[in-house]
Amino acid sequence: MDYAARLRRLESQLPEAKVDALLVSALCNIHYLTGFTGSNGFLLVAPGEVILITDPRYKIQARQETTCKVITARGQLTSSVLSLIRRKRYKTIGFEKSRLVYDSFDTISKDLPLGTSLTPAAGLVEKLRSIKSAEEIALIRRAVQTNSEAFERSLKRAKPGVREFELAAEIDNQMRRLGAESTAFDTIVASGARSALPHARPTSNFLTLNELVLIDMGARRDGYTSDMTRVLFLGTPPRRVRQLYRSVLDAQAAGIAAVRAGAKAIDVDRAARRSLEPAGLDKLFVHSTGHGLGLEIHEYPRIGRREKTRLEAGMVITIEPGVYMEGFGGIRIEDTVLVTETGCEVLTPTPKELFTL
Amino acid sequence: MDYAARLRRLESQLPEAKVDALLVSALCNIHYLTGFTGSNGFLLVAPGEVILITDPRYKIQARQETTCKVITARGQLTSSVLSLIRRKRYKTIGFEKSRLVYDSFDTISKDLPLGTSLTPAAGLVEKLRSIKSAEEIALIRRAVQTNSEAFERSLKRAKPGVREFELAAEIDNQMRRLGAESTAFDTIVASGARSALPHARPTSNFLTLNELVLIDMGARRDGYTSDMTRVLFLGTPPRRVRQLYRSVLDAQAAGIAAVRAGAKAIDVDRAARRSLEPAGLDKLFVHSTGHGLGLEIHEYPRIGRREKTRLEAGMVITIEPGVYMEGFGGIRIEDTVLVTETGCEVLTPTPKELFTL
Repeated sequence: MDYAARLRRLESQLPEAKVDALLVSALCNIHYLTGFTGSNGFLLVAPGEVILITDPRYKIQARQETTCKVITARGQLTSSVLSLIRRKRYKTIGFEKSRLVYDSFDTISKDLPLGTSLTPAAGLVEKLRSIKSAEEIALIRRAVQTNSEAFERSLKRAKPGVREFELAAEIDNQMRRLGAESTAFDTIVASGARSALPHARPTSNFLTLNELVLIDMGARRDGYTSDMTRVLFLGTPPRRVRQLYRSVLDAQAAGIAAVRAGAKAIDVDRAARRSLEPAGLDKLFVHSTGHGLGLEIHEYPRIGRREKTRLEAGMVITIEPGVYMEGFGGIRIEDTVLVTETGCEVLTPTPKELFTL
Repeated sequence: MDYAARLRRLESQLPEAKVDALLVSALCNIHYLTGFTGSNGFLLVAPGEVILITDPRYKIQARQETTCKVITARGQLTSSVLSLIRRKRYKTIGFEKSRLVYDSFDTISKDLPLGTSLTPAAGLVEKLRSIKSAEEIALIRRAVQTNSEAFERSLKRAKPGVREFELAAEIDNQMRRLGAESTAFDTIVASGARSALPHARPTSNFLTLNELVLIDMGARRDGYTSDMTRVLFLGTPPRRVRQLYRSVLDAQAAGIAAVRAGAKAIDVDRAARRSLEPAGLDKLFVHSTGHGLGLEIHEYPRIGRREKTRLEAGMVITIEPGVYMEGFGGIRIEDTVLVTETGCEVLTPTPKELFTL
């Protein structure tokens, strides 16, 4: 990855953000900017200067993963950040307000030298991250491919008598065998009425004939994630299920059709939501239409009701409308989608009919 | 779980913390207090009053998982928290300073009604959580058992020609097949010189004859975690490896021998560290001796150099000294241990000799 280019882009934005330096506290942002994958660190970025502060567990690893200057803190990282700030005499230091816990903010801000201040500068790195390079898109494609292939391989285990958690374990194992380093999030396998819980956890419930099974899964490969939801029906789906499925599929198609560089996130969300209105299903669509993904499974931008963000070519987002009926079940259909100048490319190759097994 | 009892214990501590109410923002603390397992929420706890604020995705789930009052926020959760605070007219509201991002703190605190203030009240729930009930200890035992059994089953795959990530995948799959809902953290399989990275990620490197392989793994079962590290040597270990291993094993035994209710965390850490001094290995022991675990893999208390916390019966901690030599490799030995009145019980049943395969 071209970390130097990423850092240059970030540095070029510091003047507009009215800061001399940026204190990066989100680990995924540090990873994006430097390649460092440790679980503890701060990164200070100023024109011509990039300093990683981490703890002794990561001393060797940091040197292997990054080319930036590394400080290994003996005590609290925030103390080392403070000493560094004192030495450097910055005036205004931006911090990631939605990525820094209050305690760290407080520790640093109350001991700042005279004339130095911390100021919120949220989303700088997240915005850079939202536009994926060709190299990143290739990695996401591979995660998506791994995801879809693992789904296909796991389908033969999806039958009555198998427990939700067993099917989830099979899916995860297939992703790992295909080269994923981990799942992108805890795999959801929710059968029957439990599919009405948008974020259900797999239980020891058995998959049963004539029930819906909702599967939401993602792979993480070389750091990059994928996200896909599909619905199965064990048996011959009754008319009501077929109609519901068709409505959600239409809503997903409407969402996808609205995606292109220049479109507002809110309009993509609205397209999916409106499509559910005639059948009165929009009230059962209780979440956003989608979200960006990359190094994190949920990234900027959110494709939701209040989001005026304009999509840009190179963004990778999900489109995932769903309807949920308590006591009956839920249907969600989700693809990973690449925004292009003229529209989008649906990266997920898995078919989208209702899988009947 | 007896959530009512946990809430009562927490409520009884509010006067001492000098707050009328506590705003709980750490999801694992909300889980501990109410049973709610969703990924978005705040909990407001005041005498006789427990209110969960979450988003519409978790409306049904929250009702199924908890008996407390649930508010489903249409917009930002922090707005709903503010309206609630306004209605309730609390004077002093404690917040979890190391668990609340600056942004949420700022949003809530700047719109507080006159006469109401937010005040840091860190660690209240974490301290309750550190003393495990019999029911929790039983769950941790099961996670530890799952962990050890999966390790044993995976050992036959540990041979030259297998890639680090393949062995990690096998371990994870075995844990899942044995009933773990997930791993407690990303499994570490680090071979050769990579074992000198305390937090290495599995790579596509092959396990090779006459090299160390460090495996650090944990299971999560019914929410509760385990943590274990073992080291293998593929072939006949040379004298240097055997000596190093013996030193770390002695340090681990010294740490375990120092554990008992009433002992200070710093003294347990010192016991392990001192044991490495004669051989000059203490300088290569670059992390803490251990940490509490439970719903999280790292919990209060930390067993480290500066920790004056006194251990109490019912705490569950790890003891895991390690030495790391750049370019050569690392050795760490880790068990999950239950603190008792008179000493401790090592929960991990896996043998601790150097596994030679």
